[in-house]
Amino acid sequence: MEDEKLEKLQMSRHSLSHVLAKAIKNVYGKENVKLAIGPAIDNGFYYDFDMPSISPDDFEKIEKEMKAIINKNEEFKREEISKEQALKMFEGEPYKIELINDLPEGETISVYYLGDDFVDLCRGPHVSNTSKLQSYAYKINRVSGAYWRGDEHNKMLQRVYVYAFADKKQLADYINMIEEAKKRDHNKVGRELEYFTTVDYIGQGLPIMLPRGAKTIQIMQRFVEDEEERRGYLLTKTPFMSKNDLFKISGHWDHYKESMFVLGDEKKDKEVFCLRPMTCPFQYQAYLNRPRSYRDLPMRLAETSTLFRNEASGECHGLIRVRQFTISEGHLMVRPDQLEDEFKGCLDLATYMLKTLGLYEDVSFRFSKWDENNKDKYIGSKQEWERVQGEMRRILNDLKIDYFEADGEAAFYGPKLDIQIKNVHGKEDTIITIQIDFQIAERFGMFYTDENGEKKLPYIIHRTSIGCYERTLAYLLEKYAGALPLWLCAEQVRVMNISEASEYYANEIYKKLQSYNIRCTIDVRNEKIGYKIREAATTKIPYMIIVGDGEKENGTISIRGRGNKSASGLKLDDFIARLNKEIAEKKI
Amino acid sequence: MEDEKLEKLQMSRHSLSHVLAKAIKNVYGKENVKLAIGPAIDNGFYYDFDMPSISPDDFEKIEKEMKAIINKNEEFKREEISKEQALKMFEGEPYKIELINDLPEGETISVYYLGDDFVDLCRGPHVSNTSKLQSYAYKINRVSGAYWRGDEHNKMLQRVYVYAFADKKQLADYINMIEEAKKRDHNKVGRELEYFTTVDYIGQGLPIMLPRGAKTIQIMQRFVEDEEERRGYLLTKTPFMSKNDLFKISGHWDHYKESMFVLGDEKKDKEVFCLRPMTCPFQYQAYLNRPRSYRDLPMRLAETSTLFRNEASGECHGLIRVRQFTISEGHLMVRPDQLEDEFKGCLDLATYMLKTLGLYEDVSFRFSKWDENNKDKYIGSKQEWERVQGEMRRILNDLKIDYFEADGEAAFYGPKLDIQIKNVHGKEDTIITIQIDFQIAERFGMFYTDENGEKKLPYIIHRTSIGCYERTLAYLLEKYAGALPLWLCAEQVRVMNISEASEYYANEIYKKLQSYNIRCTIDVRNEKIGYKIREAATTKIPYMIIVGDGEKENGTISIRGRGNKSASGLKLDDFIARLNKEIAEKKI
Repeated sequence: MEDEKLEKLQMSRHSLSHVLAKAIKNVYGKENVKLAIGPAIDNGFYYDFDMPSISPDDFEKIEKEMKAIINKNEEFKREEISKEQALKMFEGEPYKIELINDLPEGETISVYYLGDDFVDLCRGPHVSNTSKLQSYAYKINRVSGAYWRGDEHNKMLQRVYVYAFADKKQLADYINMIEEAKKRDHNKVGRELEYFTTVDYIGQGLPIMLPRGAKTIQIMQRFVEDEEERRGYLLTKTPFMSKNDLFKISGHWDHYKESMFVLGDEKKDKEVFCLRPMTCPFQYQAYLNRPRSYRDLPMRLAETSTLFRNEASGECHGLIRVRQFTISEGHLMVRPDQLEDEFKGCLDLATYMLKTLGLYEDVSFRFSKWDENNKDKYIGSKQEWERVQGEMRRILNDLKIDYFEADGEAAFYGPKLDIQIKNVHGKEDTIITIQIDFQIAERFGMFYTDENGEKKLPYIIHRTSIGCYERTLAYLLEKYAGALPLWLCAEQVRVMNISEASEYYANEIYKKLQSYNIRCTIDVRNEKIGYKIREAATTKIPYMIIVGDGEKENGTISIRGRGNKSASGLKLDDFIARLNKEIAEKKI
Repeated sequence: MEDEKLEKLQMSRHSLSHVLAKAIKNVYGKENVKLAIGPAIDNGFYYDFDMPSISPDDFEKIEKEMKAIINKNEEFKREEISKEQALKMFEGEPYKIELINDLPEGETISVYYLGDDFVDLCRGPHVSNTSKLQSYAYKINRVSGAYWRGDEHNKMLQRVYVYAFADKKQLADYINMIEEAKKRDHNKVGRELEYFTTVDYIGQGLPIMLPRGAKTIQIMQRFVEDEEERRGYLLTKTPFMSKNDLFKISGHWDHYKESMFVLGDEKKDKEVFCLRPMTCPFQYQAYLNRPRSYRDLPMRLAETSTLFRNEASGECHGLIRVRQFTISEGHLMVRPDQLEDEFKGCLDLATYMLKTLGLYEDVSFRFSKWDENNKDKYIGSKQEWERVQGEMRRILNDLKIDYFEADGEAAFYGPKLDIQIKNVHGKEDTIITIQIDFQIAERFGMFYTDENGEKKLPYIIHRTSIGCYERTLAYLLEKYAGALPLWLCAEQVRVMNISEASEYYANEIYKKLQSYNIRCTIDVRNEKIGYKIREAATTKIPYMIIVGDGEKENGTISIRGRGNKSASGLKLDDFIARLNKEIAEKKI
């Protein structure tokens, strides 16, 4: 949206928030409602009230009252007053009084009247008259608790969220999009389909992968590990914790401590341990285990690694923002003359993974650079950063990657290529990263002897190939609305019988599928076939095999795929061949 | 050994420790040597001295002096004296004085003379005369530091360890066994062969699996996971940490806290997290994710799980006693009528694993029961414990397991069958465990509905199938002295050329092996073939393929297996077929 249009929309949303406040006062009685604040936000606005509980049943009444106010064509009138006047004007509004008291002495205080009977402390600007809001469309979304000033020590207020757009169509489109997104939200779909759950007494951000989710992650993990081995990577398995001594060398203790889980206290304990937020300095030990020569490089190390980040409980979200996750981590120690080829190899592997999973169309590429104005966040000199960022830009250009640039998104030790993806709600996160590190090798003394017998330092490429398994699974669940490709499904086929007479036949089919390593289940309960089919369909199983007396007599099967695609009179052997082909091809 | 014989041996060892003390005084000068204590131990005895440093070069001199004392046929003479007399007698021996002062008032104090010129504070008993020690064989093993009374705040003394046995042959056999054990010690072999390492700044008990070790563990892990899936287990993947709320329900907070890593402080922090010492209460969440009926049981859950135990730094040992490890963990929720069959299934799986790895001959079975005199360590009533232990004994007897019983070795929630194994030094540990838990299901409300619609509680079987991967790898390295079976090796074949002219041919062979998924490397360095072979042999690679001009001309290969077994004139295809057979059969 152009800036000017957006500004106008945000001003109108803010004006609507005053209309809401006035409507609430009218509906619930002026003396029962204390006003806090009511800003415009991305999809409308909210307003915080201290008042008796608002029920969703009241939403319609409130919306009607808002409409009535708008229809009166009431004026928004600005007035500038002294602090003293303001304190008097807002007597009985304790939150406004607190805001006024916090204003610097001598600052001009503005208030906005809406009609004669409502006034709010406000900087503005606003539309001149509610008649200008006539074409706008709004809808109360929900009420939720919010602490005054976001501080949990303060009173919990009621925040009324309202969607607001320039016209009815835009509002309808937005609500429709939200509804669709909710249906695909991995945090809903993943729980319903029993991919994962969370449990209060275990904690936020610590998802429990149920058998279906654990199996899909196992399949992806083996796929990644095998592909990496094929590409010359060596596997490591390094500890998830370390004395903080390690992180002092690596720089994490100085640059990343707030995000780490720390066990113990330096002032009291002999040993302080940290749960690792990344694998780097652990994996370097495999390189450091013996002296290295130029012949040992490139050394490509991979690990299915578990990491821990000390996220706040409120920040945690499903499988995307978690406190513990498993990642396809790896580090390449490379000579300067190998940097471009190895970087290219990493990108090729990441691309192959994304294409195989069907996510490639959905990603964008971010060249994440340091922020020169925020040098504290980084190690190394300006000159070195510019040299390496220049090198990275050259490589990206050579590879003809369509990237955008972002300042201040680099790692503290070097620039990154971040592969970005959005979730169903439009929130963007990194799924895969490839980083060039020109600094940490020195800290760990990771020298190699070059062809002339001289000691040299390698570049280190930090990279993932499929990203974090939990997060990638989340994007897959959203992409496919829970109906994952066959090769990734824990349950690929369910066999079910129509009649008691066909139970034995169903069992024979089940055993044969198992002998071909098709992951299958069987449902021979004494239930109507329609019931069994509906139940199987809700779990989004790729295929059902349904057999009754007819199939039994002819030695055939009937199948039903997703989206009610069905076929009958098939030979089981042919169907197994078809399944195996689909699995081997990793069809999406 | 019979009790009587052992008693005599220990008495003689103790007498020899007096002989050592006297010899040391004779060699280094009475006034320079302060005596501490000198007990008999399993393989001889030791004595702690406060004195100038003893060099290993002096060992022979000391041994000779001991021999001279023995040859004098000196008498051991007991005398009982008062505390006052004792304090006077040991003037100038500060450690003895401290011991005397610690004795209760009025206790009889005994001393032993050895000849006229040496006396030691001692309870005895001793041999009557050094002539009785003539047939004994002894050898000083080493000198190491030891704090007086084991307290690091006290002075560090010199502890002289001496091997001592009833005759020369027994001593020689023991020393030979120790030498052999050292050669096989996984803590030596595993580091030399680059299976793992440890790093000071990361910490003790946190081994880093290098590519060779990580690959072997990956192979075992996949083998276990696939076999478990075949046997009807469902995979889970649960978090490695939790709020302590979970462990309060499970009972670990009360019964196991000292062994857990705890993050935070209940008095200060809103949330206290613990690193998990076992998987149980996490995996139960998969069962609890929906209501269960009798039809859902048995439910068999498996997980390749990482656990953390807060071991003291000094307790850590190689891959056997560590602070973090990965285990083939699992829990079965079973109805009472399924208990025996499912227990049997767990034992069958464990037996299959041990036989496949070649460790079955080396284990013993321990029926680990509670300790009635130590009820605090357990939950549940005596009646219940006796009922369930009786049930377990019946099952073990039905299965005709040759087990021994151990009181006080049960888990806090139920009895166990522990499969025990010894390391090269004779130290016994548990490799696999199968436990019957009749108590925890209630704490987590893990009900199921039985056929009559009534709520019932299942038994839970806690079990491992291959144990901890790190520990099992340690026993494998010791069992095979580093020469693991082909199917478990990260590097199965190394191809090497004799001449420059055969380099291309070697490369072709290497590529063909790779295409058959044989894990291989190639050595085409311009080095003598003898050098390449020796280097490969030290890494204990199962097979080398060696090709020169002759092989190239004839299109054949020469191979060299372990133990210098070699053959030539082979067809590569035949050899690949042989390798694949050996791998598929998991030949040991």
